[in-house]
Amino acid sequence: MSDSLAVQAAMLDAADELAGRRELFALDDGVVYLDGNSLGALPRHVPGRLQEVIAHQWGELRIRSWTESGWWEAPERTGDRIAPLVGAAPGRIVVGDSTSVNVFKAVVAAVRLAQDGRGGGQDGQPGPADQPGRDGQPGPDGQPGPAGRDEILVDATTFPTDGYIARSAARMTGCRLVPVVPEELPAALGPRTAVALVNHVDFRTGRLHDLPGITAAVHEAGALAVWDLCHSAGALPVGLDAHGVDLAVGCTYKYLNGGPGAPAFLYVAERHQERFDSPLPGWTSHADPFAMTPDFVAAEGVVRGRVGTPDILSLLALDAALDVWAGVRMEAVREKSLALTDFFLECVEEYAPPGRVEPLTPAAHAERGSQVALRCAEAPAVMETLIARGIVGDLRRPDVLRFGFTPLYIGFADAERAARVLGEVLREVPAGPLG
Amino acid sequence: MSDSLAVQAAMLDAADELAGRRELFALDDGVVYLDGNSLGALPRHVPGRLQEVIAHQWGELRIRSWTESGWWEAPERTGDRIAPLVGAAPGRIVVGDSTSVNVFKAVVAAVRLAQDGRGGGQDGQPGPADQPGRDGQPGPDGQPGPAGRDEILVDATTFPTDGYIARSAARMTGCRLVPVVPEELPAALGPRTAVALVNHVDFRTGRLHDLPGITAAVHEAGALAVWDLCHSAGALPVGLDAHGVDLAVGCTYKYLNGGPGAPAFLYVAERHQERFDSPLPGWTSHADPFAMTPDFVAAEGVVRGRVGTPDILSLLALDAALDVWAGVRMEAVREKSLALTDFFLECVEEYAPPGRVEPLTPAAHAERGSQVALRCAEAPAVMETLIARGIVGDLRRPDVLRFGFTPLYIGFADAERAARVLGEVLREVPAGPLG
Repeated sequence: MSDSLAVQAAMLDAADELAGRRELFALDDGVVYLDGNSLGALPRHVPGRLQEVIAHQWGELRIRSWTESGWWEAPERTGDRIAPLVGAAPGRIVVGDSTSVNVFKAVVAAVRLAQDGRGGGQDGQPGPADQPGRDGQPGPDGQPGPAGRDEILVDATTFPTDGYIARSAARMTGCRLVPVVPEELPAALGPRTAVALVNHVDFRTGRLHDLPGITAAVHEAGALAVWDLCHSAGALPVGLDAHGVDLAVGCTYKYLNGGPGAPAFLYVAERHQERFDSPLPGWTSHADPFAMTPDFVAAEGVVRGRVGTPDILSLLALDAALDVWAGVRMEAVREKSLALTDFFLECVEEYAPPGRVEPLTPAAHAERGSQVALRCAEAPAVMETLIARGIVGDLRRPDVLRFGFTPLYIGFADAERAARVLGEVLREVPAGPLG
Repeated sequence: MSDSLAVQAAMLDAADELAGRRELFALDDGVVYLDGNSLGALPRHVPGRLQEVIAHQWGELRIRSWTESGWWEAPERTGDRIAPLVGAAPGRIVVGDSTSVNVFKAVVAAVRLAQDGRGGGQDGQPGPADQPGRDGQPGPDGQPGPAGRDEILVDATTFPTDGYIARSAARMTGCRLVPVVPEELPAALGPRTAVALVNHVDFRTGRLHDLPGITAAVHEAGALAVWDLCHSAGALPVGLDAHGVDLAVGCTYKYLNGGPGAPAFLYVAERHQERFDSPLPGWTSHADPFAMTPDFVAAEGVVRGRVGTPDILSLLALDAALDVWAGVRMEAVREKSLALTDFFLECVEEYAPPGRVEPLTPAAHAERGSQVALRCAEAPAVMETLIARGIVGDLRRPDVLRFGFTPLYIGFADAERAARVLGEVLREVPAGPLG
């Protein structure tokens, strides 16, 4: 039985068009690294590239590198390299700051756009819900006008930083925060909705939310959709432009392998760039930063999503790391990701003692990101033992085992081995009173 | 005459207790690098240290490094290493994000503290100006109470990002922004003042402002003082704790040599930490970040100044760069800095054709940072030629030549040579109609 799955794994690996990418990463065959959804593995060429940046660009050229080594434009240049991976045209993504800081920029800017009557979809014209009075005065039918849009809907199951930051954005823009599970989000939309902040893939369960459908519903209500792509960028096609997403943020140290705490990215749809009004208008988002004038005049385009001096070492490590994507079709990544998670679930079903783990990740492909989450009453002890045996996933307290499948460097044999060791460990760790 | 200055320089260098530090930096004897106030030079050991971080900590330990390599605590650990350089006790500085983002945190948090009646000095008790009514109601004498503190005073000559960010902070907290030159700041303080944001050293002229005196005046008015230390941290003693500063931010890529765009730092006085209410409450400032609960509970201490996932590569480059300070007395740095700028001004006086340059940097030591700014009608052409001849300063448009003196790696012979070449260049570049 286990031979059959191992043989299957070998066949699947042999047919994998992405199998060769694994050699681009520093990986140890003694370990199955299923935590690339937390920290992506190191691309082998990054240390050498960063050595050049540090020793030559910083060490020898010093200040000249801001122009001669292209440091100044790195936030937009790196953004343009991420753009095709998430379905965005050039000039719509800028890299810098943490995801949390970008959530703040995006949510506050989105509230301001919504109150300026810019919600409601691709044409940037006020939608039907925006017809009533402006300036917060109720319209003829008693519905609030654009300036009366004072609710921020936030995914109640979100990675917590989004909720914390959205609450601060609400407090500072005079809005009300409305936490709602994504499934019930369409029903919660209304004429008061300014913004909906939603995670594309739930960090805990791995559930993939319906980005096109939710975005359309948000627009129908005259509001703006802000998407958090932390667990989807680099894992599956996102289609930001195609689906008319308003604003988005994402992480670069998970599936994009940018390094620990690498700077995040911000997407601003082209139609919103002219009125994107950042709550963090730092000097590098100024139209003429070196004029150093006391008055702020925002730069054109997505540059206005910048804040302070860009963090060059981390940014250029990310820039180098993005080389592994050359020639990769995101559709192939998605196909492999689904095949891997299907196969892992099949192996778990086969190897795990009955009743000890329960998949939280949806079976339906349309609802699955690139990780498998298993509920297990003994999760802490089980994950500790798994890691000691070279199967590196992670624990989400109190009872979730999380396994990330990064299609560029995880293969089917890895999935089979991980499930097999999980089965062994579950037989050794006694089922607790809750098990 | 010029022999005499050159001989003097050699004598001064011979007696310099910091002279040996220069060997710790990657410097090219063909160049006099007087732009360390923009981007500090590379400490020689940083590339090797970062190679270890990338290849071993990220490449081999991967996710385990968050605990095993001390990544998680790096923001506070690095803050504690900066603390003695700016006169702060441990536990009061956290490193992360850009200076601009930290200005936003500090100014918004200071407004909230002021409106909570926490301004007015070291004991954290409301000052005399805070006696009237609370909650924004005027007191018996018609003066606004703490919650009526709705003015943010900002240094009108500041590096512009501080002004832009302070304006955004004012807009988002319902305050009024009042730009004022530092000399007139004491007169502008009043019962409505919530916060004064001041630069310790003016980025353009190199003028050092009176941190103890202005802080005391701000406290006397019942308000809070936020200091920007970008051009003083690592250049001169600051005495944050001793002078009762409330909040401060600073840059680490100038005199602290942390690398291009290295993360900034935030200081929160101990007496304010319990009520420090950040506008950017990201998940890493939570009391129990890995509980990942929907409700935000701020961590104890300066940890609550954190936001998102720390940017490890840049942070650990900075951590390594700070090694050059081991055993350095900040008083010795200050003495050398003043001697260097005095000597450079003396050499300029000697070598420059009369009337072509005018020092903007104050002659009085108590008013001078660690740079010399010279007004020169032909500044753009002069700086371009200087750089081509190995004297690297920078230009602040339209007419300022800026020369930074970083005492750890600049010597008196460098100052003499820079002034001598400046004299030659001024003789070659014709005086313009404004000259």
